[in-house]
Amino acid sequence: MTGADQRAAALLDQTRVRLVGVRPASQVVRFRSPLHLLHAGPPLRLDEAPGPMRGAILGALVFEGVAGGLEESARMVERGEVELTPCHACGGVGAMAGIVTPSMPVVVVETESGGRAFSPLNEGLGRALRFGSNAPDVLERLAWIRDVAAPLLDAAIAASDPIDLTALQAEGLRRGDECHNRNVASSANLVLRLAPAICRLAPGGATAAQVIEYAGRNPHFFLPFSMAAAKAIGDAAAGVGGSGIVTGICANGRRVGVRVSGTGDRWFEAEAPLGVPCLFEGYTLEDAQPMMGDSFATEVVGLGAFALTAAPAITSFIGGDAASSARLVEEMRTITVTESTRFRVPFEGFRGTPLGIDVRRVAATGIAPVVNNGIAHREPGRGQVGAGVTRMPLGPFLEAAAAIDRRGEAGA
Amino acid sequence: MTGADQRAAALLDQTRVRLVGVRPASQVVRFRSPLHLLHAGPPLRLDEAPGPMRGAILGALVFEGVAGGLEESARMVERGEVELTPCHACGGVGAMAGIVTPSMPVVVVETESGGRAFSPLNEGLGRALRFGSNAPDVLERLAWIRDVAAPLLDAAIAASDPIDLTALQAEGLRRGDECHNRNVASSANLVLRLAPAICRLAPGGATAAQVIEYAGRNPHFFLPFSMAAAKAIGDAAAGVGGSGIVTGICANGRRVGVRVSGTGDRWFEAEAPLGVPCLFEGYTLEDAQPMMGDSFATEVVGLGAFALTAAPAITSFIGGDAASSARLVEEMRTITVTESTRFRVPFEGFRGTPLGIDVRRVAATGIAPVVNNGIAHREPGRGQVGAGVTRMPLGPFLEAAAAIDRRGEAGA
Repeated sequence: MTGADQRAAALLDQTRVRLVGVRPASQVVRFRSPLHLLHAGPPLRLDEAPGPMRGAILGALVFEGVAGGLEESARMVERGEVELTPCHACGGVGAMAGIVTPSMPVVVVETESGGRAFSPLNEGLGRALRFGSNAPDVLERLAWIRDVAAPLLDAAIAASDPIDLTALQAEGLRRGDECHNRNVASSANLVLRLAPAICRLAPGGATAAQVIEYAGRNPHFFLPFSMAAAKAIGDAAAGVGGSGIVTGICANGRRVGVRVSGTGDRWFEAEAPLGVPCLFEGYTLEDAQPMMGDSFATEVVGLGAFALTAAPAITSFIGGDAASSARLVEEMRTITVTESTRFRVPFEGFRGTPLGIDVRRVAATGIAPVVNNGIAHREPGRGQVGAGVTRMPLGPFLEAAAAIDRRGEAGA
Repeated sequence: MTGADQRAAALLDQTRVRLVGVRPASQVVRFRSPLHLLHAGPPLRLDEAPGPMRGAILGALVFEGVAGGLEESARMVERGEVELTPCHACGGVGAMAGIVTPSMPVVVVETESGGRAFSPLNEGLGRALRFGSNAPDVLERLAWIRDVAAPLLDAAIAASDPIDLTALQAEGLRRGDECHNRNVASSANLVLRLAPAICRLAPGGATAAQVIEYAGRNPHFFLPFSMAAAKAIGDAAAGVGGSGIVTGICANGRRVGVRVSGTGDRWFEAEAPLGVPCLFEGYTLEDAQPMMGDSFATEVVGLGAFALTAAPAITSFIGGDAASSARLVEEMRTITVTESTRFRVPFEGFRGTPLGIDVRRVAATGIAPVVNNGIAHREPGRGQVGAGVTRMPLGPFLEAAAAIDRRGEAGA
């Protein structure tokens, strides 16, 4: 490990993140117009948007009030009037399609040194915009979240004791979550912390009850909090000259992107893999959308597939078993430079999760990182069809390693 | 395994328990006078009550309003005016000292066939009556729980969807609890289910907030719910003629008691062990109260120490590690007749926890069951000094096996 890698890994390990609030995206992103939307993954052209992302874009334009209906949205897209920017380019991350509009509520987090990140509030299971659903009930739920739930959550966060999200993630590992694809105990933990302030600040008991129901019955409520924290940590570790430590992994349904510390904002890309997903009953591989979303930021900080041994119950959902999980985590230790000092797995004797993916080690071993993955249906609005552990393509890591080495030679 | 053992084990495995409410103990127990109290463990004389139980009795008399202060309580105890009955004899279980007074709120549960059980609501961590604390603030907190929290919890339970406690325990095992000494995720799960109704039914947001804070910040809030469910299950499996399956384990700080199905209400007793507790810093073995409480009902149904592999984080609190936990659970499989079909450990490939302690197998192997244990200070009011896994004395199991065999011969 080089000194640069050591510095980058230390930033991944030690950057603490606190919860700031839940705000309209327009407060944290400068949108250039009401037709300017954010999306998950590395940059892509509007005409490349895969099915679920296209469905989300159509719904988002109606939600935002710039289109009167889905047909008008479709015409706007066909005329190329919609501008797409990656969430990552604006300091954020979005699950699945990751479409963010100006009025959409996003979780805002901050590092000790003032670095901010955001991720859109999770709508809940089932039909959801992030999977490309855009039916009236989906947009109504989004509007209620924007108008009622988000402002109350924001006020409750401000009125509650400060919430250290990295501490919540660490506790999540003790409660059987890996804080990417399993968040059920962490969601309960977070909602319970906010519930007293929600009760005190709500205009009435019924509103408090509805907001607690929305948040408390959503097993992925914690996901955007975990993702935003991971993004803030990844960004904190970026820009260490000469370091080949991975600071970002994302996908847009067409291509995956990998960032390393020493090359800043550059995405090293490859075709998005389909992996070997564990499909829900009744679906086939033909239904599955290749890798899409920014939630792989969690693997970058030692969570998700890198903390699989903390969440044995997840195997009923993503396949595998305790032994295969242990093997995967052990394998990830061969391509990381250190172990997390705060994300510890009780079942491994509180050993830290593998941390700091080193593209040089990936290049040397030929072992690509794995990520936990939720699989969307290829078509808009069909929702989730499965989940699994997905092996990343090697290409971006090899390219990044070569780029870092070239820079080192150029600098020497 | 005999047919009788099979029937008793099936009852332990399949009896489902739903939450009924939180009621004053006087609604579920016929107290003979305001000086009649319930206690944990097998029967004991008032003058035998160990330090923490004595402290709890003194406080309970003041709480109940029959004594004006602790000195008056002490005089009543010295004059032998207080009548003690085991919780178990009244269909209940109490953690640690297990002192229950008529006005004290208890969790009430019910099996599908109408069998009821109860356990006093958990006061929270720190200084608590169950550890023998009886200072004014302890009694004030108890009075607030009785007057404000309990009625609201009861109303919320009535207004919420039915709560299957055995399903919550099963989910607890997926969230890193063993539902005896680690209840943190299950507590959050239960409180979140009740929170919306609490919001709707509370006289105001401040009261809702206080009740959710009390319940939600107490990592052992779920314990009496888990214990009452276990007691109801143990009782459902009692009375199967010829069965040597254990249906109850408890302790009163002086003696432990073990019940088996074929001999009904009889307690087979032995001196309460101290075990090898993991003591909090600053305490020695001299401070530790030998085994006390009814919470070992959870081991009887395949939770607690029998589900240790589900709760690896508990080892930071009770000692040991993942490997020693696995060895203990494996050892328990040698003295049980089956595996739980509902309490499954994700890390063991969702294998069921060992279930149905067979006194004949204990006698044949010389392996006594282990239980998870919270250790109180010997002196009243000092609180918890440690925790650990405690090996039961063999005597009661050998006696019970002999009694069952004698009955079998007498019947043959």
